[in-house]
Amino acid sequence: MDKPIGVIDSGVGGLTVVHELMRQLPKEKLIYLGDTARCPYGPRSEKEVKKFTWEMVNFLMEKDIKMLVIACNTATAFTLAELQEELDIPVIGVIQPGARAAIKFTQNNHVGVIGTEGTINSEAYTQALKKINENIHVNALACPSFVPMVESGTLAGPEAYSVVEETLLPMKRRNHMDTLILGCTHYPLIKDTIQEVIGEHVTIISSSEETARETSTILDVHGLLSNTEMSPVHQFYTTGELDIFIEIARTIFQESSFNMLKIKKAGLISNQDA
Amino acid sequence: MDKPIGVIDSGVGGLTVVHELMRQLPKEKLIYLGDTARCPYGPRSEKEVKKFTWEMVNFLMEKDIKMLVIACNTATAFTLAELQEELDIPVIGVIQPGARAAIKFTQNNHVGVIGTEGTINSEAYTQALKKINENIHVNALACPSFVPMVESGTLAGPEAYSVVEETLLPMKRRNHMDTLILGCTHYPLIKDTIQEVIGEHVTIISSSEETARETSTILDVHGLLSNTEMSPVHQFYTTGELDIFIEIARTIFQESSFNMLKIKKAGLISNQDA
Repeated sequence: MDKPIGVIDSGVGGLTVVHELMRQLPKEKLIYLGDTARCPYGPRSEKEVKKFTWEMVNFLMEKDIKMLVIACNTATAFTLAELQEELDIPVIGVIQPGARAAIKFTQNNHVGVIGTEGTINSEAYTQALKKINENIHVNALACPSFVPMVESGTLAGPEAYSVVEETLLPMKRRNHMDTLILGCTHYPLIKDTIQEVIGEHVTIISSSEETARETSTILDVHGLLSNTEMSPVHQFYTTGELDIFIEIARTIFQESSFNMLKIKKAGLISNQDA
Repeated sequence: MDKPIGVIDSGVGGLTVVHELMRQLPKEKLIYLGDTARCPYGPRSEKEVKKFTWEMVNFLMEKDIKMLVIACNTATAFTLAELQEELDIPVIGVIQPGARAAIKFTQNNHVGVIGTEGTINSEAYTQALKKINENIHVNALACPSFVPMVESGTLAGPEAYSVVEETLLPMKRRNHMDTLILGCTHYPLIKDTIQEVIGEHVTIISSSEETARETSTILDVHGLLSNTEMSPVHQFYTTGELDIFIEIARTIFQESSFNMLKIKKAGLISNQDA
């Protein structure tokens, strides 16, 4: 099955999922679409997020993808069930893989979740955790300052440490958790700083890594794994400015991986939506 | 979906998978069948393993299971593809989840695998790893002394340490691996001893934990997760001696879990097969 896997995101955060897909599934060809022009989705209404997500999905379905990864927490919260029902290809979001990994790792059933305000307010992680195990205690915290910090390129150092420390303070105060879910695809980029602040005794779950792992599971179970011998070339589309997208992609991917990317502008949306 | 998950194994090793299924999926009802009377499967022919496995599968299919877990490495190696094709319920084995977890964890692409002679000689793990990533270096070692030691109840202490140390010596000598797969469902019972011998720098992957995790994924993707509020009662069947089975189950499960089990003898096989 040499068809590509489609990956959608509201912007560049989903590139951490792509990075893990490239690492864990090196034979698979990827098509990524980031709706950078209309990012962030977090503060938008459910109706708007659904409309934008369907536009992205239709764009990728025309490129004959074999599976869809929704690499955006907000889009997952609002559209996963609908997309799973209406598309005839497997669809996975970023919320459930992180929740399942946390359930596997936790020994004391105290799990923390951090994400954008939209994701935390949607309670999607709490629901995903409790759906499987009602005895999981969830300690959720919105971290609105993290995404702007990452998008500005501050990933480590004293400034990042002080922002992360201040933000996570309320979580540390009532901290029995042994497992913390990074419930936003931007956060793996500041994982080391978060680990330093929260302490080595807490296992940090990257929803990006876990989503890539489960993509592998689902492709296998559906008999969809690629069996090519060739190194795939990946296609990346952004609805926003090409230069900024390329700059961020360069910081996420190492040189050898970066050279496997073809980045284009997608003519997806009309200006009045942006 | 309040139908049970069916779990089959050649004997008692699969109980480590059941233990993880109970921990990671506490709402799910399980039916386990251990073919203790004809254990081990490792030295048996492919034809015989297929025949015995189909007998177990037919026994569980009559109990209206919603998913099948093959909690035995040998049976997975010989029958997974066939069962996935012929049954109309999802089927998962123990080999692929361990392989996928190793690919996620390894940073240097050097992965070790230990298992019975049957599993190692089948090269099923090497194939599962290389199918996804041809650049993975696999260091595989058969450990024929581990299963008899575990079945005799020696799980820790100086005797266990010396058996494990001596067995793993050839693997330690040429050891670049950062990840080691326990490719036998008995081995999680001696995981601490193996970790002590192999060193803390190696991440140990329990195929039992990973199989339970992927069972969760597959149930969710197929819309088969249980939504009951009640604590499930599990049914356990053995083709062998009830007393020995109960004794081993008692060492694997804690008291509270053990009380959730109903253990019976299965009238599955004629004597000439044993």
